[in-house]
Amino acid sequence: MWYNPTRKIGEKGAGMLRVGIMGARGWAGEELINILISHPEVNISALTARVEKPVRISEIFPHLEGRLDIECEDMSPSEVAKKCDLVFLALPHTVSMKTAPVLLRAGKRVIDLSGDYRLKDKNLYKKWYGSSHASPQYLNRAVYGLPELYRDDIRDAEIVANPGCYPVSIILAVLPLVRKGVVESNSIIADSKSGVTGAGREPSPKTHFCEVNENLMPYKVNSHQHMPEINQELSKVSRNRIQITFVPYLLPLDRGILSTVYMTAKGRITEKALLKLYQEFYKGEPFVRIMKPGIFPDLKSVSRTNFCDIGIRLDGNRIIVLSAIDNLLKGASGQAVQNMNIMYGFPETMGLI
Amino acid sequence: MWYNPTRKIGEKGAGMLRVGIMGARGWAGEELINILISHPEVNISALTARVEKPVRISEIFPHLEGRLDIECEDMSPSEVAKKCDLVFLALPHTVSMKTAPVLLRAGKRVIDLSGDYRLKDKNLYKKWYGSSHASPQYLNRAVYGLPELYRDDIRDAEIVANPGCYPVSIILAVLPLVRKGVVESNSIIADSKSGVTGAGREPSPKTHFCEVNENLMPYKVNSHQHMPEINQELSKVSRNRIQITFVPYLLPLDRGILSTVYMTAKGRITEKALLKLYQEFYKGEPFVRIMKPGIFPDLKSVSRTNFCDIGIRLDGNRIIVLSAIDNLLKGASGQAVQNMNIMYGFPETMGLI
Amino acid sequence: MWYNPTRKIGEKGAGMLRVGIMGARGWAGEELINILISHPEVNISALTARVEKPVRISEIFPHLEGRLDIECEDMSPSEVAKKCDLVFLALPHTVSMKTAPVLLRAGKRVIDLSGDYRLKDKNLYKKWYGSSHASPQYLNRAVYGLPELYRDDIRDAEIVANPGCYPVSIILAVLPLVRKGVVESNSIIADSKSGVTGAGREPSPKTHFCEVNENLMPYKVNSHQHMPEINQELSKVSRNRIQITFVPYLLPLDRGILSTVYMTAKGRITEKALLKLYQEFYKGEPFVRIMKPGIFPDLKSVSRTNFCDIGIRLDGNRIIVLSAIDNLLKGASGQAVQNMNIMYGFPETMGLI
Amino acid sequence: MWYNPTRKIGEKGAGMLRVGIMGARGWAGEELINILISHPEVNISALTARVEKPVRISEIFPHLEGRLDIECEDMSPSEVAKKCDLVFLALPHTVSMKTAPVLLRAGKRVIDLSGDYRLKDKNLYKKWYGSSHASPQYLNRAVYGLPELYRDDIRDAEIVANPGCYPVSIILAVLPLVRKGVVESNSIIADSKSGVTGAGREPSPKTHFCEVNENLMPYKVNSHQHMPEINQELSKVSRNRIQITFVPYLLPLDRGILSTVYMTAKGRITEKALLKLYQEFYKGEPFVRIMKPGIFPDLKSVSRTNFCDIGIRLDGNRIIVLSAIDNLLKGASGQAVQNMNIMYGFPETMGLI
Repeated sequence: MWYNPTRKIGEKGAGMLRVGIMGARGWAGEELINILISHPEVNISALTARVEKPVRISEIFPHLEGRLDIECEDMSPSEVAKKCDLVFLALPHTVSMKTAPVLLRAGKRVIDLSGDYRLKDKNLYKKWYGSSHASPQYLNRAVYGLPELYRDDIRDAEIVANPGCYPVSIILAVLPLVRKGVVESNSIIADSKSGVTGAGREPSPKTHFCEVNENLMPYKVNSHQHMPEINQELSKVSRNRIQITFVPYLLPLDRGILSTVYMTAKGRITEKALLKLYQEFYKGEPFVRIMKPGIFPDLKSVSRTNFCDIGIRLDGNRIIVLSAIDNLLKGASGQAVQNMNIMYGFPETMGLI
Repeated sequence: MWYNPTRKIGEKGAGMLRVGIMGARGWAGEELINILISHPEVNISALTARVEKPVRISEIFPHLEGRLDIECEDMSPSEVAKKCDLVFLALPHTVSMKTAPVLLRAGKRVIDLSGDYRLKDKNLYKKWYGSSHASPQYLNRAVYGLPELYRDDIRDAEIVANPGCYPVSIILAVLPLVRKGVVESNSIIADSKSGVTGAGREPSPKTHFCEVNENLMPYKVNSHQHMPEINQELSKVSRNRIQITFVPYLLPLDRGILSTVYMTAKGRITEKALLKLYQEFYKGEPFVRIMKPGIFPDLKSVSRTNFCDIGIRLDGNRIIVLSAIDNLLKGASGQAVQNMNIMYGFPETMGLI
Repeated sequence: MWYNPTRKIGEKGAGMLRVGIMGARGWAGEELINILISHPEVNISALTARVEKPVRISEIFPHLEGRLDIECEDMSPSEVAKKCDLVFLALPHTVSMKTAPVLLRAGKRVIDLSGDYRLKDKNLYKKWYGSSHASPQYLNRAVYGLPELYRDDIRDAEIVANPGCYPVSIILAVLPLVRKGVVESNSIIADSKSGVTGAGREPSPKTHFCEVNENLMPYKVNSHQHMPEINQELSKVSRNRIQITFVPYLLPLDRGILSTVYMTAKGRITEKALLKLYQEFYKGEPFVRIMKPGIFPDLKSVSRTNFCDIGIRLDGNRIIVLSAIDNLLKGASGQAVQNMNIMYGFPETMGLI
Repeated sequence: MWYNPTRKIGEKGAGMLRVGIMGARGWAGEELINILISHPEVNISALTARVEKPVRISEIFPHLEGRLDIECEDMSPSEVAKKCDLVFLALPHTVSMKTAPVLLRAGKRVIDLSGDYRLKDKNLYKKWYGSSHASPQYLNRAVYGLPELYRDDIRDAEIVANPGCYPVSIILAVLPLVRKGVVESNSIIADSKSGVTGAGREPSPKTHFCEVNENLMPYKVNSHQHMPEINQELSKVSRNRIQITFVPYLLPLDRGILSTVYMTAKGRITEKALLKLYQEFYKGEPFVRIMKPGIFPDLKSVSRTNFCDIGIRLDGNRIIVLSAIDNLLKGASGQAVQNMNIMYGFPETMGLI
């Protein structure tokens, strides 16, 4: 329906998919560039950022010197539309919702990494993001970009709402249990520790080196804007109303989210049965790895990969699930490229392993 | 009964308390030295470590050059007994239980920072520490050194079992709730993140810089030897059998423990009532600080202090309590000095603020 | 001449020295508070910062809760003058030079931690700090606050220009050699690595955690504003014109400066003779420690101390001197308190060991 | 002469180069695996380490789960020879020199990442590495694997001595100046700061997290075993005897070496002329990037790349050159793969960009 590769996958050439990245200067944008540079099916054809005048991207990111020779410009969405088949929006929330419609009307496909199209309920959006939604007509057309849940819908999506980093780590950790109705709906507690790239690139007192270093800072205790997104998706899967308790923290490191989720089993269960449930549920998933009994995920093992590692332990009827991802990859840009691969019929792991 | 200062507090002189530190080369030993050097009532009169021959302590810790001129020797407990009124044992577990009896029989008082005298049940000790207890007759004479629970008993104790670092952070976080019977006994979950000084000074693959740095590592998931200690103390306070769920982690930083404890309230309660309960419970405690609503503790605010900061949030009937301590101070050596101050009638904060 | 303590040192009471800190919210200000809280001769009687309304200092620095109960206000220098005998200026450069004259005219003594009174030549000041000097009449009355060079002058100074952090580490490293004429004047190269507290508390892209972490960044390569200060002091000591080569770096850590200075000896010399020269030169200095042959300073050994550790190695006629300080202590606030102790006849190490 | 690819580059298949890695468990070995997994011309056909029994490599490195399915065994060199065309030795020094001869005699090509074949003089080897050389007959047949110096010799080498990490960073920094005779031979000072992966994976007190973290540690001050290697290569290029002064440090981070080299120009020179000299000298080099005037390299810009970034500044007749590399890539495993690419006629950047 969308882009139909006539050439054999692996050949570089005129038939390559032209992609644009709006908001190329943030962490997610930079990471998208890193992945897409060596993706064999893709040409990066537009980069935008709020720069005063066009500037070579290697001026902004010196490590791209000699690897990508393209300018980053403060282009309008309609200018971007002319140069691209697919556009990644690595923009702040409230900006994406004004940008995506222009691209969609021009017949382009969009993967939005902001929070703008994740919540289906525009009132909830207003409550948590503080603004009225500018293009609510797309909320229901946007597919929530978690392939483990919506792979088929993603394939044909015109717009994908790429999930938040915390939600990826938490939803993947509990999905098999919620789908199978194994746990009490009101018992889910997520304790999630994140690296600082999750907090955005804008300098602030909270991200000053000396505040973060040698520190662990809880923040937005049970009031983070990723909560309604998690609740929405888990409730949909469970067919019950689920509201999690959620405490996030800033770790003194660059990358990674480790979420520990505590839940109460409805009935008797064994650790062995739990492991089997997870292994079967995620069988064939290229980026979810279930750890052996007694082994638990850590951040360094998933850092700079698109994997989500999951470890499980049972304490009576309390189930403990730990999941680890790289917040910039499976939690953002890697996830987005995985979605792109699905949308265009490329091998799902292309550019990601 | 024990040491009776005839001179006015503050005067340095012959009447000073002579203290020894066995195991002076570990983190806890080093921190004890740091505190006691400037404690106005104390002379450090003996330091021991497994050194081949006597060595000036400033050879081991260059930062002590010009501040403490005493040798560190591989002395026997009976030699130490001759030089000291009070001995701090900063020894590994299973070593303390063979050392303390010698000192006690010589009429000396002991503050043991290992796990050897914390559990009252010798079978539990064997199960969790892997050895039969060598001096079980002292288990019931040892006072659990948490002043917020046992101040009066500490005053006259011959031997104090200084609490574990995780237990301090967790017990102080839930004490008012458990004492007042506010929470369900089986609902307590503690998610505790610790700096690397908590893992001991011995080099190992797990504490290699490149393993810890840019990482967050869960370990001993619900199987840490501090669990029975927490269960013992909370059960005693609650008069019910309490068994917590406990997940500890290694943070990429030197000092501090942040514990987040999740509990279920038995009945209806408000955040305001909770705060009031904590404020009243800890009124007059010199080292426990209750944060204002919406403010939560972080590690840097308690680092290198003996404070325990506590923040509280309510989510329906789920109570979230966060507590932060410096694991080497309120979690070990600072706590030990606080206990010493109580044992000898010194002002409780002396040397600690 | 200035403050005449009638009571015995050590007694707290009405006769205590009243000190103010202007710019209490920066790193240097915070560190001054930390030191002065437990200084037995001093009462902190005024704290200023650009706050909208008076605020308790423990609101700004939670770790001061229960330790210091005083408000921080946006006071004018003349208001501060009424409350203090001595004022520490922990203000940005160009602000101090407008503030100090008001205090001095009110008969108060001043220790300025900015760069405003360090350079004796107002043209040099303009060149390096970008502004004309607002009170050049004080440039020659200000004493450069390095006790190892100017202890006698500091004693009676009305205003002390506290040295820059890099200059302390470099001047102390080469002072004996320059004073004795051992090295070629044009051969001095200083390679200095600093923690991030040296870069100020204002958030900026350069101090964002993710820029500094896992990085080492050279900056102002041979163009740092501390160079003329070093050149001025070394030239004065040497009686020759000295111009050093200077490369500073930002380290991914909070505190400390390690300077390595490379110089060419004029004639033949031995490592043994060098060590002896340093030991004799710094004999009796309470805060300079010369390391044994083959031992070199590191940052952790001086962190949170007022010491400057110096190690020496000879390579043919090339002399290598390494020095380590805590940039917030011997490099700023500790140095300032050492100067205060000298100015008021207190023991020089009081509050600092 | 060696391996003659009959299939078109890019096709995967039976004709792929079979490579082995001996010492797969260290940092260099792990990094080689990371690179070679996605190298289109290579199959990893053997991995060795001192393991008790064969173990899947993903048991050792969990991040390889699902990416490489091969066992790591404690194989003898002759067993390895049967499975491979080319063998990378990521072994400790003194082990390589006993291993390489077996492989070479079996007709295999070898890239040795240890220090065993870098020094041409066996006496020098003994002096600096503490052992007599076990296979000195190969010292002169081994090609020093710095493509910027010896590209043509590498092409046909049977054994490549991959350079040390510090030497790469220092030699590349000064090569144009030494080749052109611009600087005084006895004036070269290298001040080099390295991440901890440079110090090896074996746990030791020096690499304990709490020793390295918040610290900067000089070590082997002017006595590091990389000095004779640097002197040998620079002397050869210069046709004069060169002996550098060298101070290395351990930084609190995982990866990277930043070397600052100070030299004295023989005559008058301008910064512009220097820059031009470097640009021309390194023209066409795929992995050396010369920074613009006023811009200097930092570690994060080269981290996880095979680039060496070089920045230059002039101070009178003193030349300051800063160079940055990733010690595990251009300083070890990336360099080794670059050498492999040259040896087998693959594009030089294959697998590295």
